[in-house]
Amino acid sequence: MLKNKIGREIPESIEGIGKLRPYNGPFDFVPNKRRYGRKISAVLPGENKVLESIEEAVKKSGLKDGMTISFHHHLREGDYILNMVLDVIAKLGIKNLTVASSSLNKVHKPLIEHIKNGVVTKIITSGVRGPLAEAISHGILDTPIIIRSHGGRARAIEAGDLKIDVAFLGAPSCDEYGNASGFKGKSFCGSLGYAKIDVQYADKVVLITDNLVEYPNVPASIFQNDVDYIVKVDAIGDPNGIISGATRYTKNPRELLIAKYAAKAIEVSGYFKNGFSIQSGSGGAALAVGRFLKSEMKERNIKASFGLGGITGQFVEMMKEGLISKLYDVQSFDLKSAKSIGEDPNHFEIDASMYANPHNKGCIANKLDVVILSALEIDTDFNVNVITGSDGVIRGASGGHCDTAAGAKLSMIVAPLVRGRIPTVVEKVTTVITPGETIDVLVTDRGIAVNPKRQDLIERFKTAKLPVVTIEELREKAEKATGKPEKIEYTDKIVGLVEYRDGSIIDVIRQVK
Amino acid sequence: MLKNKIGREIPESIEGIGKLRPYNGPFDFVPNKRRYGRKISAVLPGENKVLESIEEAVKKSGLKDGMTISFHHHLREGDYILNMVLDVIAKLGIKNLTVASSSLNKVHKPLIEHIKNGVVTKIITSGVRGPLAEAISHGILDTPIIIRSHGGRARAIEAGDLKIDVAFLGAPSCDEYGNASGFKGKSFCGSLGYAKIDVQYADKVVLITDNLVEYPNVPASIFQNDVDYIVKVDAIGDPNGIISGATRYTKNPRELLIAKYAAKAIEVSGYFKNGFSIQSGSGGAALAVGRFLKSEMKERNIKASFGLGGITGQFVEMMKEGLISKLYDVQSFDLKSAKSIGEDPNHFEIDASMYANPHNKGCIANKLDVVILSALEIDTDFNVNVITGSDGVIRGASGGHCDTAAGAKLSMIVAPLVRGRIPTVVEKVTTVITPGETIDVLVTDRGIAVNPKRQDLIERFKTAKLPVVTIEELREKAEKATGKPEKIEYTDKIVGLVEYRDGSIIDVIRQVK
Repeated sequence: MLKNKIGREIPESIEGIGKLRPYNGPFDFVPNKRRYGRKISAVLPGENKVLESIEEAVKKSGLKDGMTISFHHHLREGDYILNMVLDVIAKLGIKNLTVASSSLNKVHKPLIEHIKNGVVTKIITSGVRGPLAEAISHGILDTPIIIRSHGGRARAIEAGDLKIDVAFLGAPSCDEYGNASGFKGKSFCGSLGYAKIDVQYADKVVLITDNLVEYPNVPASIFQNDVDYIVKVDAIGDPNGIISGATRYTKNPRELLIAKYAAKAIEVSGYFKNGFSIQSGSGGAALAVGRFLKSEMKERNIKASFGLGGITGQFVEMMKEGLISKLYDVQSFDLKSAKSIGEDPNHFEIDASMYANPHNKGCIANKLDVVILSALEIDTDFNVNVITGSDGVIRGASGGHCDTAAGAKLSMIVAPLVRGRIPTVVEKVTTVITPGETIDVLVTDRGIAVNPKRQDLIERFKTAKLPVVTIEELREKAEKATGKPEKIEYTDKIVGLVEYRDGSIIDVIRQVK
Repeated sequence: MLKNKIGREIPESIEGIGKLRPYNGPFDFVPNKRRYGRKISAVLPGENKVLESIEEAVKKSGLKDGMTISFHHHLREGDYILNMVLDVIAKLGIKNLTVASSSLNKVHKPLIEHIKNGVVTKIITSGVRGPLAEAISHGILDTPIIIRSHGGRARAIEAGDLKIDVAFLGAPSCDEYGNASGFKGKSFCGSLGYAKIDVQYADKVVLITDNLVEYPNVPASIFQNDVDYIVKVDAIGDPNGIISGATRYTKNPRELLIAKYAAKAIEVSGYFKNGFSIQSGSGGAALAVGRFLKSEMKERNIKASFGLGGITGQFVEMMKEGLISKLYDVQSFDLKSAKSIGEDPNHFEIDASMYANPHNKGCIANKLDVVILSALEIDTDFNVNVITGSDGVIRGASGGHCDTAAGAKLSMIVAPLVRGRIPTVVEKVTTVITPGETIDVLVTDRGIAVNPKRQDLIERFKTAKLPVVTIEELREKAEKATGKPEKIEYTDKIVGLVEYRDGSIIDVIRQVK
């Protein structure tokens, strides 16, 4: 065991994964490899790519025991693809696979069976929820899962740290030669930003669609020259699970208070000026921040140059109202956003590398002024946990959290001080996803804590009469409200490795008792 | 020396280049490598990419003796970039470079001096014209130049056969972080389709612009995550040389006759039906074919699914009139096309790999029904020369000729039987760019010759009462008109290697006496 820069114990290596590099600061590691290259293969004129079934595609792809298969999670809780493909693979008797999905959801519960029967032995993902997450936390896998951020996944694929043998990707619209997009068809999901990386680096790419359209299907998010096979199925997902409707604004007074503080803090931060850029989330408080900022932008005649991220209908509305000039969309969060990306010429689809990969020549996260992020827990070193619950069980996703925190000039966490009987501000977070040195401000309903390295912000906030407190004070208040949190009991077994965006290990997740 | 499949003598290897693989049929070679990967490097938040001068960019790029630098030729005869950059490099005393430009033009005459003083010792290009071409043909370089098709260049870059150390690319619009496009600004050129490959594979990418615009510059053809440095200069090119105005339609009766035959041949070929696809050139006869086809499409209510290639204003007009559904544009041939690509949502920019690379998972050339191509010479085996004149001197470019001929279902050459005292149809072409086995039809003003392997077309053409003759008959007619062509006198020195799109050598060019 080695202690990394933030004091977390990291094993030197893990069986089935290899040597680990401990986290040593957000920009400490300097990449020194060449980009990975997929196998070159030629599709000749006249060759047909459309196959009869997923089974035929699995066979033609050359999938074998021990290989790595990838998926995207743009179909969210509506996704049929991963379960369909694994059922076929299981039937064909292929074993010992690594599943590398851009994320996993409750809908992927059937993976548990495929783990039990040896079809899947490793998992790499941004996050996981529901029964599968419970099973992993209770040690169902011999090898720990690897949690990667969205930018970190793109990095890993480009660097060859994650080598994909076959990518199986749902496509809401696709032509016979593999030109595909996410914004047309009954299973539309908007951006295909995560899938765009897989198709460039996987040795074989299989698109699965329920909407085979005329050639050429343009504009396309995935291009024909990256696609081997296409399979038509009845449905790639359940529309109700793929995309949620319009997001409702919170009326929760505590969330509104947090949002008021947060908006004010942004307004006086020095970054709130014409041409600023912003990323925000889809939670109640984050959306309420947007609402307050919006009226202040109108007031002061301030226009944002771009909005980034998972894009919500709120940002789409702000673009339509002329308050945001361009949207960069790696993942469309709701119905309005998923529709807009196919319609509005100022709403651009980006891939996960351009979004947040730290090891390319400058991702968009680098150009962010302000990012508003959530937290399950944050500790007195400002380290943030968005992956494990207070019981130690996995129930979230890394997402773009650590990516945008590292890139943005102002990275702000918005969270209630306590949730029920559970404190948000703690002495040590259960699991670190985002290191405190990349977090500038924590806004709670009980005060605003500023990272001491940002004395400039402390002064600005105090001048604006915002309730600035130390994070230690917030921790004390939280503890007073909830009592000292009970210690989670773990076994020695590591069930998850949390990789920082640069490929180093920032924390481990242990099996809960 | 080995004889390749079409009987051309190919050396086994060349000093300074290495072992050669002789051409052995258009789809004989099966690629077996992985794609090449550029050096991974990270640009951190806050880092500035905009440099003061080309000199600073050359220094920061780490350019050293013996390296390879690349350029694009989208600025055509107006290009200032290549000469500017080489002047700076020469001043800095860097020697022994390989210049890999997507093509070279008359404007690049100053390269001659840089060859003489040892700055440039190798050249890789699609073609070359003017004094530089004369100098090369007369043996100015010790190592032969390599002629690659547009698809072949993309293939070579992806396969790592052409490794670019530093790309210097003119950008008609660019922001401070490297998002760039070709359709805005005083030096606009339309598509940046060739440059799009270089930026993905070059270790270092320098964009040179005369139009630094606000961040983010979207829609972009080149993305920030591929760009290291940006230099602002007064002008990247001369607009008069970059883009030609509207193309005039030919009134030459011989060209009109060829076009009439060609259009009729296409109409009866079996490929002329709703949803067909087409690529054509910008020459007088090719444009006239388009004119005839257009009226027949209206007549028969036929709409093309896509137009491909170097895109002309004629195709833009046909799209606007609803006769072509989508345009795929790797290079905008004229003013109308260069403007349209930035304005019309059905006019799409593509990179050279998607256009015509034989070793990806299916380029668009694979999906072409009809391509209309030109020829300087064509021989009785249907081999085509578009690179050397009847005097053996280089005066053309490979372009997408062999790429689209191999991809299209109907590849048609349109050419006059003789040009002045020079026959077009000969026994053996001076240099082979496109192998005869990929050519289906030759249309001349004196008759139509069909490749014997296409008996189906011979029957269709005869039924349509088109003047079908054998290519041997055409050669005899040509010889009767011009007399037997004088034999060109060469030395033993090889000054150029003609690479087929798959990386094999289809022919060599020798030094003229």
